[in-house]
Amino acid sequence: MWTYEDFQVGDRLALGSVQVQEEEVLAFARRYDPQPFHVDRQRAAASQFGGLIASGWHTCAMVMRLACDTYLLDAASFGSPGVEGIEWLKPVRPGDTLSAWRTVLETRPSRSKPDRGAVFSEFEARNQHGETVLRMRAWSLFYRRAAGPAQA
Amino acid sequence: MWTYEDFQVGDRLALGSVQVQEEEVLAFARRYDPQPFHVDRQRAAASQFGGLIASGWHTCAMVMRLACDTYLLDAASFGSPGVEGIEWLKPVRPGDTLSAWRTVLETRPSRSKPDRGAVFSEFEARNQHGETVLRMRAWSLFYRRAAGPAQA
Repeated sequence: MWTYEDFQVGDRLALGSVQVQEEEVLAFARRYDPQPFHVDRQRAAASQFGGLIASGWHTCAMVMRLACDTYLLDAASFGSPGVEGIEWLKPVRPGDTLSAWRTVLETRPSRSKPDRGAVFSEFEARNQHGETVLRMRAWSLFYRRAAGPAQA
Repeated sequence: MWTYEDFQVGDRLALGSVQVQEEEVLAFARRYDPQPFHVDRQRAAASQFGGLIASGWHTCAMVMRLACDTYLLDAASFGSPGVEGIEWLKPVRPGDTLSAWRTVLETRPSRSKPDRGAVFSEFEARNQHGETVLRMRAWSLFYRRAAGPAQA
């Protein structure tokens, strides 16, 4: 069980990889971001992107899943107050394989609640060509070991 | 067709409303963010949230859909380089009705490409109690009217 103490500034963790599926790109975008270059193969091919690309929100969601599978589902986590920045640096296309990493940038114990703290991390995803497609800096909240719900 | 010229600093646009569906909260989270408070009714009820809450990424995606339906699908839009901040201020729960607004904060014509410009906007979503649940500041790219693909 990951708790606040397990995050140290500079720690870099590989989050594994995911292959981007065309059907999922289409399904996500039809529901949440039906711009032509996300949902219409022909119009996407004629656009400046030259083919379908994933919604940026879908890319964030795929990286979130990698983080869940690597450590968040085994963490005394209780959500996030927010994100300080997302950069969608390159198009993400069906068939791409994205690999992601998390680097801890800062840790901050709660002043008012001694049982918890916040961790500020950078998430980076690269495609199979080694190009960085996503960079994101987000806060996550964790209980501390001595006070975590697993010990309650 | 919305083009770069149609965005003026200070413009505030209502993006309409969406009701948060429990089945969709579960489906999104099972696929992308399967933390217990997003996917497990019982564990969510026992958590500090007191019940299921939507993944923050799902909330962003729901607001993206409102933006699409209100103006983005009728815009000479070609994506976004990124987001400068997301604040998930309050839990979003099944049954909530979210209403969203977009306010233009800055517009910036491209220096190198005279046919396009960037628009920096704040997106805000409130629940049926008037509480702000999401605040987000994002860049969007648009063609200019004289050079938009609709006129090509």
